Amino acid sequence: MIPNAALEALRAQAPLVHCITNYVAMNIAANVTLAVGASPAMIHAPEEVADFAPIAGALTINIGTLSTQCVDSRISAAVAANSANVPWVLDPVAHFATAYRAKVAKDLLALQPTILRGNASEIIALAGGAGSGKGADSGDSVNDAQSAAEGLAERHGCVVAVSGPVDFITDGARSASVTGGSDLMPKVTALGCSLTALLGAYAAVAPSLEATVAAFVHFAEAGERAATDATGPGSFSVAFLDTLHTLKPGDLADTRVSWR
Amino acid sequence: MIPNAALEALRAQAPLVHCITNYVAMNIAANVTLAVGASPAMIHAPEEVADFAPIAGALTINIGTLSTQCVDSRISAAVAANSANVPWVLDPVAHFATAYRAKVAKDLLALQPTILRGNASEIIALAGGAGSGKGADSGDSVNDAQSAAEGLAERHGCVVAVSGPVDFITDGARSASVTGGSDLMPKVTALGCSLTALLGAYAAVAPSLEATVAAFVHFAEAGERAATDATGPGSFSVAFLDTLHTLKPGDLADTRVSWR
Amino acid sequence: MIPNAALEALRAQAPLVHCITNYVAMNIAANVTLAVGASPAMIHAPEEVADFAPIAGALTINIGTLSTQCVDSRISAAVAANSANVPWVLDPVAHFATAYRAKVAKDLLALQPTILRGNASEIIALAGGAGSGKGADSGDSVNDAQSAAEGLAERHGCVVAVSGPVDFITDGARSASVTGGSDLMPKVTALGCSLTALLGAYAAVAPSLEATVAAFVHFAEAGERAATDATGPGSFSVAFLDTLHTLKPGDLADTRVSWR
Repeated sequence: MIPNAALEALRAQAPLVHCITNYVAMNIAANVTLAVGASPAMIHAPEEVADFAPIAGALTINIGTLSTQCVDSRISAAVAANSANVPWVLDPVAHFATAYRAKVAKDLLALQPTILRGNASEIIALAGGAGSGKGADSGDSVNDAQSAAEGLAERHGCVVAVSGPVDFITDGARSASVTGGSDLMPKVTALGCSLTALLGAYAAVAPSLEATVAAFVHFAEAGERAATDATGPGSFSVAFLDTLHTLKPGDLADTRVSWR
Repeated sequence: MIPNAALEALRAQAPLVHCITNYVAMNIAANVTLAVGASPAMIHAPEEVADFAPIAGALTINIGTLSTQCVDSRISAAVAANSANVPWVLDPVAHFATAYRAKVAKDLLALQPTILRGNASEIIALAGGAGSGKGADSGDSVNDAQSAAEGLAERHGCVVAVSGPVDFITDGARSASVTGGSDLMPKVTALGCSLTALLGAYAAVAPSLEATVAAFVHFAEAGERAATDATGPGSFSVAFLDTLHTLKPGDLADTRVSWR
Repeated sequence: MIPNAALEALRAQAPLVHCITNYVAMNIAANVTLAVGASPAMIHAPEEVADFAPIAGALTINIGTLSTQCVDSRISAAVAANSANVPWVLDPVAHFATAYRAKVAKDLLALQPTILRGNASEIIALAGGAGSGKGADSGDSVNDAQSAAEGLAERHGCVVAVSGPVDFITDGARSASVTGGSDLMPKVTALGCSLTALLGAYAAVAPSLEATVAAFVHFAEAGERAATDATGPGSFSVAFLDTLHTLKPGDLADTRVSWR
């Protein structure tokens, strides 16, 4: 399914996306999800996530700002999504920064996400390598993370996506690069987390590899257009939400994607 | 008290509004409350809400992103507000989505809020009907929720407001419709939750039915003006905050309100 | 170190700033920190803060939206920062509003922050005076808080900064005033909390008094420029983030600072 067809399906179905994300990202991730035409629900209480995940089109789990109760919720939601065959996305933010965070990421990865998305340092470290990330920011290049991504995809049977100036996406068998975006994107907090929410929206309407590519192309296209008139991260954010919303099927250029 | 007089009172008194809301809404709800000229305080620890609610001009309680501790706080705050005769507003976000959420909404409603605000699906479900909401979004029309709203208003002795393209507000005896706004408003997350905060600001300075109408007119007026030059939900949000701030007493057109 | 030299150091080092802040502020504080060129990490779980604080260039602690677990994290993080000689900033938001909040502020102050920042009412109350704050907003003038600030600086061996139309900064021996900014700044929620995050970024690269002055000058300069074309708090916020980002070493005018 090419990106434009996936966007058409997303707009037609307006899927409900269950997003369990961090407190920094909640607002912008919900706004990104609404802007593209899906319906986000940021439900995270341990008492209810297992009831809600099965009725959503997809689930996304991000570990940005953890706390004890939050971890329980994430585990319950992933288990419930698996039982109901709901696709789910894992975003292991800065999992290498503390032992606590590393354990949570490992426990979630063991539950077999449909899609795993991170920056290069996160993917390298998840594969057991020594990355050079600093907090939530990557210190490694996407190229350096490709073999780690392929290894994780094969080992865990999921799509692995590495965000960066040129993104890399693989299911272990097929791989794609996506170009576009803007160097203002890492200057806006939680855009990566918001892309994770967008992956959920696409995963609800398309097969996982195509969904991942479509979400990255949508993000890259919107980022590149939004940067045109932006004078900094504030005006960029505004234009980015506008552009995510106004992009139509037909606007997601295939030329951004290189399959190999 | 007509909307313009209520806005004049709000600007003169700059009431302190105690907002217990969800994590998605906290920032935008505080910004909306500041923009109109009130003073928001987003205090939610169970250890302090009962001390704080009585010193505020109004309290607002939203159940968007629940957790165990959050529920205790909401109950304590509502009880404290009642004891101190502080008006309070209930926003039962997506209460029909899980059993946990339904129970929390029911427990709070039993504490007799001054004003109850929701979308059509939320109001229908709270009255015992079968709505067709999806997550935080309504699947029903405001018209379909009118009798549910009137029933709830009579049964619980509160003002009930249903948000939608044309809003419906009733205290069981008198009812009003409010027109305006923009179809970009549901594309910005937590604007409904922010309207709940605004209801608190007006409820601190005006009788509950008039306060509700004034808040809805303020929102509708700002939304309609903000949409004029907006190209999407990003630029709309920016213009919406600007317009909430720049609207003056005299700008809240009575023609938006139909009493019946 | 003059403000421009401090900004040059900040841009060169892009310090990692560990921000434990409130839920209202998390997104905007992270965006402010990114905009100036530092790397924010909003890690707050009690299980990991003590591991993370020592690897950051600075720690900032804000008590805006407390909860039981949040308080434990703040204490642990401050202790860990002290052990590792990491500078840390305390922002005792509305600590006078409830007994719970007052105790948390007192306990944190006893741990000897490097920098203490508040509005006039917060600083007066922390020194034992009777301020007239309302929720998170100050009811007192910066002038009225100067002797309280000097007393706190001497007693606790820290830099004390009072935010207001003209800011006041002192380490007990030397004092400075900073002019600039805009009266739209108090109309945007959590900008004070965001300044606290910025203080962390500067404290990671400059001595505490100079770091404080530089952060306030950066904020004042950006605020004044951003207000030029703003029509309200929405457009102001956007321009403010843009301007924080585009200001270069050389743009932070010494003329904003009066030493005495």
